[in-house]
Amino acid sequence: MKNGVVRAGIVVTGTEVITGRISDANGPWVSERLADLGVEVAHIMVVADRPDDLMDALRFLAAEEMDLIVTSGGLGPTADDLTAEIVGRFAGRPMLLDDDMEAKIREILRRFARNRSFKFDEEAVMAANRKQAMVPEGAIALDPIGTAPGLVVPAGERVVIVMPGPPRELQPMWPRALETGPVRAILSQATPLHGLTMRMFGVPESEIAKSLREIEDEDGVDVEAVEVTTCLRRGEIEIDVRWRNETEAVAMAVRDGLRRRHERETFSLDGSTIDEQVAKLLKGHKLGLAESCSGGLLAARITHVPGASEYFAGSAVTYSYEAKEELLGVPKELLEEFGAVSPECAEAMAKGALKAFEADVAVSITGIAGPGGALPDKPVGFVCFHAILADGTAIARSPVIPGDRADIRERSGLVAMHILRDLLS
Amino acid sequence: MKNGVVRAGIVVTGTEVITGRISDANGPWVSERLADLGVEVAHIMVVADRPDDLMDALRFLAAEEMDLIVTSGGLGPTADDLTAEIVGRFAGRPMLLDDDMEAKIREILRRFARNRSFKFDEEAVMAANRKQAMVPEGAIALDPIGTAPGLVVPAGERVVIVMPGPPRELQPMWPRALETGPVRAILSQATPLHGLTMRMFGVPESEIAKSLREIEDEDGVDVEAVEVTTCLRRGEIEIDVRWRNETEAVAMAVRDGLRRRHERETFSLDGSTIDEQVAKLLKGHKLGLAESCSGGLLAARITHVPGASEYFAGSAVTYSYEAKEELLGVPKELLEEFGAVSPECAEAMAKGALKAFEADVAVSITGIAGPGGALPDKPVGFVCFHAILADGTAIARSPVIPGDRADIRERSGLVAMHILRDLLS
Repeated sequence: MKNGVVRAGIVVTGTEVITGRISDANGPWVSERLADLGVEVAHIMVVADRPDDLMDALRFLAAEEMDLIVTSGGLGPTADDLTAEIVGRFAGRPMLLDDDMEAKIREILRRFARNRSFKFDEEAVMAANRKQAMVPEGAIALDPIGTAPGLVVPAGERVVIVMPGPPRELQPMWPRALETGPVRAILSQATPLHGLTMRMFGVPESEIAKSLREIEDEDGVDVEAVEVTTCLRRGEIEIDVRWRNETEAVAMAVRDGLRRRHERETFSLDGSTIDEQVAKLLKGHKLGLAESCSGGLLAARITHVPGASEYFAGSAVTYSYEAKEELLGVPKELLEEFGAVSPECAEAMAKGALKAFEADVAVSITGIAGPGGALPDKPVGFVCFHAILADGTAIARSPVIPGDRADIRERSGLVAMHILRDLLS
Repeated sequence: MKNGVVRAGIVVTGTEVITGRISDANGPWVSERLADLGVEVAHIMVVADRPDDLMDALRFLAAEEMDLIVTSGGLGPTADDLTAEIVGRFAGRPMLLDDDMEAKIREILRRFARNRSFKFDEEAVMAANRKQAMVPEGAIALDPIGTAPGLVVPAGERVVIVMPGPPRELQPMWPRALETGPVRAILSQATPLHGLTMRMFGVPESEIAKSLREIEDEDGVDVEAVEVTTCLRRGEIEIDVRWRNETEAVAMAVRDGLRRRHERETFSLDGSTIDEQVAKLLKGHKLGLAESCSGGLLAARITHVPGASEYFAGSAVTYSYEAKEELLGVPKELLEEFGAVSPECAEAMAKGALKAFEADVAVSITGIAGPGGALPDKPVGFVCFHAILADGTAIARSPVIPGDRADIRERSGLVAMHILRDLLS
């Protein structure tokens, strides 16, 4: 403990993470869980599968006086999976074969082999997995979700939580680690942190910095007493305010000050995302989409939400002229006169989607995602949107969206979501 | 230099990264670039926007004898953007206002303000951005891509490269940092590392571990002399082999040994992805899709590739029964007899897509992504695929895909890509 705050460091192992072949989801996930418990995460370290580097990282976090160290990854059956052994050495605890655990892993692998059509050399696989049943003396082994057990390893003044790398194994195992005695003892010293998240659309990040200075200078609020982070995330501004019990009033004043100054741009005060808001607004409606440059991304975004089938009928992803004519009934003459990327075509596509899907709300997207395809009067990033209700109420917009092909495609989906929200609310 | 190898550490700053509100793309990206140059990246560290934590991370990397330290983030206009100052202190260099740089930033902001419809308080923004023109004495400032300049800061035996956080600023600025004298001096000592990537589909990771042991024991290859990492990535196995000049023969023997043992499952020997391979195979074809549970993800995947409009006509994302009937001509009776999730419906959808898009190749996906919707004989994850050519040649499969809703949806797209590859090659 440093200044009465419980602090944690996270070590993510794996050469495949350090080289970027897979991106790390565990560091941020664990970090968020710990923050909710009032633990301050100071460092997330990604280290290659080299024993010395992992050991050095653990020693650094010990020198930094972390009360809790969480590792992820390196618990697999292969020779470069070394985490358990290194953590054991770090904690000064020899590795012992845990017979119960070996039996459990054997059983899991047998079940796995039976359910798969893969050919297995059972004994070879068992041998490779035997090392997963090696546990540092005095550590608590956590039952595997996949085939690798987790560990809670007391190490002097601190505790190391050793978790498997695949998020689908780590996340269900995490609560079990929190229930162990050594981890509970540390967490009991933390003061829970509260947090709120606001979201804005259509305001630059520097304006938020300016507003925070005004809240300090004009409103006389001690903004520094709480933690405010602003972050430009996929075209939206996310503002996170975190506080402990004694500074709740400051946090509320910051929230209200920001909201007052950016009334129109603030679309979320409770952390809800635009996707969640649109999903709620769509209840009782029937939505049809007509997509061109977004290539199905808007449909994918809408259907990411479980239960979307209650209000989502479908999307006509029409890349070619013929598809726009055939599926959406866009007149050939309109396409020839105005082009496929035009407010006129967007309108015809939206109306076509209303009809094709027998929907009562429809949105269309047609634009130039690049890198090729720009026209003299239509640059890359020019995207036309049209959202319409069955009664004819409509919103049309044709912004130029900055960025590369991937940005423009994704941002198109985002803009469409905000237009949908405006239309439905 | 440690054992003749040039080593680097990367520090990613930002509370919004450590709390997981944005995921870090820079650490892995820089790591990959450095690996290509023969530099071994030992640590990626993510630290919160707290000056002490950043300084401690820099000191740790110095103690670890890193020759090169790269930081990303913390160069913005807000008070919690502290990287330049901390790196200056770490290098023992006072901060000086760079007048030229201030003028450049001023010019950039003016242009930015003119191009946007946002209301700007110009002086407030300039004041906030003046701190971005503060440069450690003796450091090399790199022209901004956004509004923040990068820095190359000599610090005793090592060099710190200070980069902005947004990937679209960092990535174009990176080559400029490599051209500076101090960085070139360090890179000239590195021996370039060669690498190859193989990809397999449909084989468990433990089988690769077993094959590597066989290559060592049976083929007598000194596998340890090269670096082999295997990684299960979105349902595919990615195997990365890295070597220096003197161990080229070993690397080739490892590649050949793996290929021989997993002939059928190996679909890529040159690192090409399934998406790239399918894009190439689709040249000269016209593709139509019919999607249900994948909700547009397959279309989004296909259209992610620039130039997809040459072969991609469109996708009918049909969630409702009516949409399947209306857009794809799936007979109502078929839906009633077999259900929407059935090999029969998949076949009708694929044939419907051939017709609706006047395509010569079509693929359909219909399945139960969950969490709800399971039927007695059709569990969550049951997905039917049908791929068909104009001449009637077809591949049909109906696997049960493991995982949660997001996994099943994404994996559906992957399976469809592999079926498309099989059909077209």
